[in-house]
Amino acid sequence: MKDKPLVSILMGSDSDYATMERTAQVLHDFEVSYEVRVMSAHRTPEQVTNHVRHVTKNGTKIFIAAAGGAAHLAGAVAAQTTLPVIGVPISSTELHGMDALYSTVQMPPGVPVATVAIGKFGATNAALLAIQILALHDPKLQGKLKKYKDSMREKVIKADIELQKKLH
Amino acid sequence: MKDKPLVSILMGSDSDYATMERTAQVLHDFEVSYEVRVMSAHRTPEQVTNHVRHVTKNGTKIFIAAAGGAAHLAGAVAAQTTLPVIGVPISSTELHGMDALYSTVQMPPGVPVATVAIGKFGATNAALLAIQILALHDPKLQGKLKKYKDSMREKVIKADIELQKKLH
Amino acid sequence: MKDKPLVSILMGSDSDYATMERTAQVLHDFEVSYEVRVMSAHRTPEQVTNHVRHVTKNGTKIFIAAAGGAAHLAGAVAAQTTLPVIGVPISSTELHGMDALYSTVQMPPGVPVATVAIGKFGATNAALLAIQILALHDPKLQGKLKKYKDSMREKVIKADIELQKKLH
Amino acid sequence: MKDKPLVSILMGSDSDYATMERTAQVLHDFEVSYEVRVMSAHRTPEQVTNHVRHVTKNGTKIFIAAAGGAAHLAGAVAAQTTLPVIGVPISSTELHGMDALYSTVQMPPGVPVATVAIGKFGATNAALLAIQILALHDPKLQGKLKKYKDSMREKVIKADIELQKKLH
Amino acid sequence: MKDKPLVSILMGSDSDYATMERTAQVLHDFEVSYEVRVMSAHRTPEQVTNHVRHVTKNGTKIFIAAAGGAAHLAGAVAAQTTLPVIGVPISSTELHGMDALYSTVQMPPGVPVATVAIGKFGATNAALLAIQILALHDPKLQGKLKKYKDSMREKVIKADIELQKKLH
Amino acid sequence: MKDKPLVSILMGSDSDYATMERTAQVLHDFEVSYEVRVMSAHRTPEQVTNHVRHVTKNGTKIFIAAAGGAAHLAGAVAAQTTLPVIGVPISSTELHGMDALYSTVQMPPGVPVATVAIGKFGATNAALLAIQILALHDPKLQGKLKKYKDSMREKVIKADIELQKKLH
Amino acid sequence: MKDKPLVSILMGSDSDYATMERTAQVLHDFEVSYEVRVMSAHRTPEQVTNHVRHVTKNGTKIFIAAAGGAAHLAGAVAAQTTLPVIGVPISSTELHGMDALYSTVQMPPGVPVATVAIGKFGATNAALLAIQILALHDPKLQGKLKKYKDSMREKVIKADIELQKKLH
Amino acid sequence: MKDKPLVSILMGSDSDYATMERTAQVLHDFEVSYEVRVMSAHRTPEQVTNHVRHVTKNGTKIFIAAAGGAAHLAGAVAAQTTLPVIGVPISSTELHGMDALYSTVQMPPGVPVATVAIGKFGATNAALLAIQILALHDPKLQGKLKKYKDSMREKVIKADIELQKKLH
Repeated sequence: MKDKPLVSILMGSDSDYATMERTAQVLHDFEVSYEVRVMSAHRTPEQVTNHVRHVTKNGTKIFIAAAGGAAHLAGAVAAQTTLPVIGVPISSTELHGMDALYSTVQMPPGVPVATVAIGKFGATNAALLAIQILALHDPKLQGKLKKYKDSMREKVIKADIELQKKLH
Repeated sequence: MKDKPLVSILMGSDSDYATMERTAQVLHDFEVSYEVRVMSAHRTPEQVTNHVRHVTKNGTKIFIAAAGGAAHLAGAVAAQTTLPVIGVPISSTELHGMDALYSTVQMPPGVPVATVAIGKFGATNAALLAIQILALHDPKLQGKLKKYKDSMREKVIKADIELQKKLH
Repeated sequence: MKDKPLVSILMGSDSDYATMERTAQVLHDFEVSYEVRVMSAHRTPEQVTNHVRHVTKNGTKIFIAAAGGAAHLAGAVAAQTTLPVIGVPISSTELHGMDALYSTVQMPPGVPVATVAIGKFGATNAALLAIQILALHDPKLQGKLKKYKDSMREKVIKADIELQKKLH
Repeated sequence: MKDKPLVSILMGSDSDYATMERTAQVLHDFEVSYEVRVMSAHRTPEQVTNHVRHVTKNGTKIFIAAAGGAAHLAGAVAAQTTLPVIGVPISSTELHGMDALYSTVQMPPGVPVATVAIGKFGATNAALLAIQILALHDPKLQGKLKKYKDSMREKVIKADIELQKKLH
Repeated sequence: MKDKPLVSILMGSDSDYATMERTAQVLHDFEVSYEVRVMSAHRTPEQVTNHVRHVTKNGTKIFIAAAGGAAHLAGAVAAQTTLPVIGVPISSTELHGMDALYSTVQMPPGVPVATVAIGKFGATNAALLAIQILALHDPKLQGKLKKYKDSMREKVIKADIELQKKLH
Repeated sequence: MKDKPLVSILMGSDSDYATMERTAQVLHDFEVSYEVRVMSAHRTPEQVTNHVRHVTKNGTKIFIAAAGGAAHLAGAVAAQTTLPVIGVPISSTELHGMDALYSTVQMPPGVPVATVAIGKFGATNAALLAIQILALHDPKLQGKLKKYKDSMREKVIKADIELQKKLH
Repeated sequence: MKDKPLVSILMGSDSDYATMERTAQVLHDFEVSYEVRVMSAHRTPEQVTNHVRHVTKNGTKIFIAAAGGAAHLAGAVAAQTTLPVIGVPISSTELHGMDALYSTVQMPPGVPVATVAIGKFGATNAALLAIQILALHDPKLQGKLKKYKDSMREKVIKADIELQKKLH
Repeated sequence: MKDKPLVSILMGSDSDYATMERTAQVLHDFEVSYEVRVMSAHRTPEQVTNHVRHVTKNGTKIFIAAAGGAAHLAGAVAAQTTLPVIGVPISSTELHGMDALYSTVQMPPGVPVATVAIGKFGATNAALLAIQILALHDPKLQGKLKKYKDSMREKVIKADIELQKKLH
């Protein structure tokens, strides 16, 4: 998956990978090429700018940016591109992700960030949202999404059946 | 813009149009076809299901769903489609949109909603996010986005110049 | 308790059973027939619709719906029935149930959800609220409720006596 | 509607009637007998106790209690009866109903309060919830609820049609 | 300390004693007579009413009431007496005491509750506040309070000295 | 009321008098001597220290301190005296009193502040709490408090009667 | 004040000037040179980068950055300089500045932003904090700060005197 | 580092040193003289006043004050000096630092506190902010800050390289 990944996952800190591993896993499962990079809106701002501009011109279609606290990464990416940017608020401070959620979702008009849930739920959904976007012009991916939705439904139904067995 | 709109804007109540007019306006300005429909996850759930399934098969690419309070509309749409769903939390209760934000963004894994800011900022950004997604395969739209970004930058620069005049 | 349960307990995920076991236990103790089903407003929406419509016609009197995060299950049930729906917000995300509480209680006019406390307290009270409703036309159940209230009072009084012993 | 009202609406202050008028109106529209009384868990606690005990024995089936701030009224009623108690949090302090919501919904196990939305939305829904409960043994009322649900659906559909006219 | 305690500590649940032990300890250290009783605004409301009225007439000067969640105990006590009532919000639910704080402090005009900090800090301070009130007419107690304040100051100064030793 | 007021009301800003006028009025109505002073923990800290120490020695029995935002006044007073200190959080910032509430109530162990509700409700209750404390050794004041409680009860009952007239 | 201003005030939007005028006024009153510029972390990120780098090398000593919502401006400035950066959270969204506060203050280790109060209070204090910093090596400015502190004290004392006149 | 420390770190409690050790460490690493003192706005107010006044005249340039709960220490320091005061909110109560944040940042106009993030992030940043201020007139320190910023950037880049190795 080295060349021209379709999805560029950026994280403000390598510790965020504990959460964002799920994003990578879902993209991997859907056979969507991706990269996972550590770069920080506050500690390596030029790198963020350069990377976003560079990959925007070289085949990346979607950014997924994860950060905690005063989570500026998704916004910093969105400032540099007209590609869709998905933001994952990470729960890494005493305010358990509420700070990251507000910092990610409350963007000013003109610079959208597609925000998903705080933490692990959001990490999974960021990948799926990226896949939904890519699937708009990729019928094979669209098919996989439908299978995923089906299997998700089946899992719930199966969990229900298991519970009935357990209870009766 | 009547046939096969690319973007389907759904609102839980017609009073939400005071906010969502901005979404329509931005899509109109970018010449992206859209529809604006009033339908409610709680009051017309079948209509939501039927509409989402119907237009998913007939050319709609993206949903934008706006609701206040226990804002389930975006989630209800996301439950019925594998197309991208953008959620706009509306500030219509005593909790000024915090309830709508949490109800929209904190989706379980498997069913993403791309959430934008509460209220008017989000209404504008929902349209732009939809356009960014559509522009992935529409170079003309990509060009317009770049112009929009440029004009936005110029507006800020102009505001700065005006302020300098005013202050000196 | 297999046929025609009076109370239908729905949970968005089987992991919610760790909390909702209490609901089942209280209903069991009061000899009120119930079922516990796993189904999800977002992952198995048709199942929710079908189930609610089906059991509404077949003797179920009350729904209890438990979900976490953007907790739409109770609202989705309430959208499909005119039977009373009780909502239990589950604490399953970084926002420890505040998201589930707002998503459950802030319903729009016309579609009430009778919301109880977050988590275990709510799980117990959802059962008791259902029993209070059923007891309106069931003097035997009314009698049991009074005994329960008496025993609850006695437990507090006994706890007080035990504490006095311990302290003196 | 003077004798033996089925629903007893209690408010902590007469100023709450600005909100609770909606509850009365909905019950009136459904021809469900009710009373609206001003009594306070903190200022007239004996009156609350006496009233609740008295009407519990004399035909009242459901209580609806509305209060703001440290909203104890619904809990105080629930402490005295095994009838269902519906709580409406009123937005009357600087914390705009968040204090009343927490004070109403976070009841300890054993003493449920069926909590609805803060303010006007909750006032309407408290009445509907009471009607849903009463309708369990009143087919005529059940029929009215279905009509109400239908008319609600039609209003949304009509609002949608009106919007389409306006926009095209 | 059996007869006529000056301070009556009431707790909604015996589990609150883990926190309120500190209140008892401080009162014990100041040789102020007290009792610690378990009684609940929701589960034993008559007992609360009777107890408050009884001890109000029999020498109790101050109430300290501790409860979690929809913490009504302090308000229920305040409704029955014109003696000072101190409220300690207990952190016993998913909202970690924020619900108990709002339920205790946001009392309506006419029925004050002197609220202290959530949890252990508040448990200590409730005792000290009671002692400050009693000391208004008890010079010996006033003297002890001054010694306590002095010793508190000395502890901080000693902690500072210890830290200096450790650091140099 | 000039010499030796029993209650010293301190406000961080003269604009707080719009709220604290109620405190003065209640004390006036109960014929309890008081003073109202403007002094600030942050702008006139020495004056606060000197005043508190001075009046503590000269007959003042209770302090009532009102402040908004980072509301330190009550804590600063409590640091200088062993007399009871009542804190009134004022709603004067964008956080509408939540900041003042937390700054007032969350005091460390050893330095209690008896906190009442945010704003006008708290202003009234601060006076009543002070009167309750003074009444512990003033039977006449105790009598007035009982009358006040009675008249409060009668007002609620009268409001109820008026509402019944209006509704029937 | 055109050349080499010591303080560079940056605002995300010209509408923020309604708040930040106070910052300018205080700096003006202290005769500290400043500029007020409109530039946006999200709409003109290069301009922010270029400006910060440029003026950092040309005599600016301190930045004051004001923004609302997902307020990244202060952090974006701090990412580009080792000069002190003061952040003013602006209340411009439905979350009335809580989003801006968290986005400004919760910065990751290594990139501090000196955050002041939300809105007008913060706008005044940002200027004073800048002046305090500059005064460390400017005895004349230190003298003015002391006068300011004195005059502030005198205003409070005067307000107290006025209130005494009014009340007696 | 015994005489004339440039930075005076004050903590409300010695338990805060678990957090503030980081502040000391950073200052140590930058070879900036500092002291760490335990003193409390509420328990040793005179000591705070005396210390602040004393060291203000004896070479201290900056204060860093850390406290939890109703965190008044930074404000109490700011009330006594015209030197810059940096506030670190400590998470030591059930409200996990939100109370300390509001108590520290929401200062009234005229008395700024430069607030940094809650807890450990803030402890590091308080030191860096102090160093940034001192570096304004200390080119050597300015050089160290640049090196620190460089090393921080390199660490992020290195973390990115490590992650790439791990993933490929």
